[in-house]
Amino acid sequence: MRLRNKPWAKDKLSDNPQYVVHEPEQYRGRWNELFKQNQHLHIEIGTGKGRFITEMAKANPEINYIGIELQESVIVSALDRVIEAEVNNCKLMNVNAAELGKYFARGDVDRVYLNFSDPWPKTRHEKRRLTYKSFLSTYEEILVPNGEIHFKTDNQGLFEYSLTSFSAYGLLLKYVSLDLHHSDFEGNIMTEYEEKFSSRGNRIYRAEVQYRTK
Amino acid sequence: MRLRNKPWAKDKLSDNPQYVVHEPEQYRGRWNELFKQNQHLHIEIGTGKGRFITEMAKANPEINYIGIELQESVIVSALDRVIEAEVNNCKLMNVNAAELGKYFARGDVDRVYLNFSDPWPKTRHEKRRLTYKSFLSTYEEILVPNGEIHFKTDNQGLFEYSLTSFSAYGLLLKYVSLDLHHSDFEGNIMTEYEEKFSSRGNRIYRAEVQYRTK
Repeated sequence: MRLRNKPWAKDKLSDNPQYVVHEPEQYRGRWNELFKQNQHLHIEIGTGKGRFITEMAKANPEINYIGIELQESVIVSALDRVIEAEVNNCKLMNVNAAELGKYFARGDVDRVYLNFSDPWPKTRHEKRRLTYKSFLSTYEEILVPNGEIHFKTDNQGLFEYSLTSFSAYGLLLKYVSLDLHHSDFEGNIMTEYEEKFSSRGNRIYRAEVQYRTK
Repeated sequence: MRLRNKPWAKDKLSDNPQYVVHEPEQYRGRWNELFKQNQHLHIEIGTGKGRFITEMAKANPEINYIGIELQESVIVSALDRVIEAEVNNCKLMNVNAAELGKYFARGDVDRVYLNFSDPWPKTRHEKRRLTYKSFLSTYEEILVPNGEIHFKTDNQGLFEYSLTSFSAYGLLLKYVSLDLHHSDFEGNIMTEYEEKFSSRGNRIYRAEVQYRTK
């Protein structure tokens, strides 16, 4: 997405500690202390403007959510949404996904959502794709045993790549849809991007994969 | 496919022993004695009218092929093709795929092709799908270690099902295309069915999976 410089973004994030996690290292291994309810934690990596994570938090009060987004100028839009929704089971974190192990201990997270991640189509950029093996290893380091990744994209190449990457890593493919919006999947919550691109007729691909106990 | 009764089919198959394998049990563990050349063996299950297997045999003289088809009235059309092609590396077998273990020993086969298999869309018919776990087990019994299945279909539901079935069985997904005819895959040989349905705009899905060494 095209980024607009928002010099006030950093201050706005600092001014809302009830929704934006500061110094997340301090919660490593004890995230439940941050939330009102001691319950499962699902995180979305690349949360963008936050529609998905906010709607999920509203629909599922029995689960805690953290939306992770590297771009300050984008996560401030997610912050507006979370503030407006007044949900107490949804937080935001302005950190790099490659460093998740610094913030989460093994078993802190029950599920990882990847929605419409940057496809990085050039082969030389393979390592930047959020389904590259190094990221799958990072997720494994923070997930519970048999933790899951739920992945949506409209990018055919990224989906094909990800299916083979999941398999090479040894993940179990529990569910796959090659046309989500014409499937029997219920309760789909659309991201901003998903609504825009599916309305143009693009197919949405979706997979659920699970780490196998080793 | 709609089947027409061809009472002369059985005689025609019997009359062409150079192309139609009779009493295939006798070659179990020693299929190379049947072919002129001692070389890798690829089989197609559900070979239909035989275009794929015949064209593959012509294009790859360094590989032996067997096309397996249960319907007498269909395999006679494949026989016409093989006779016309005058290839000595392609045979046909009129047997049931569920009984492959009777005809092939472990390691006899290097690759299994499944092309546009019957999707059996009803859940109660799951066990009839050629990518159901009992069939994956049958293929494993006759393949070399690390043997492969190459699978094409235009049926979205069967492809989704098969990807999860392959994964649950522990197969490695080496290659996947969600739109074969607009991919960079080279050397695709179309089946009769594939040509007809892709010309109507249907997407063709394709996967290569490999048994892992246990």
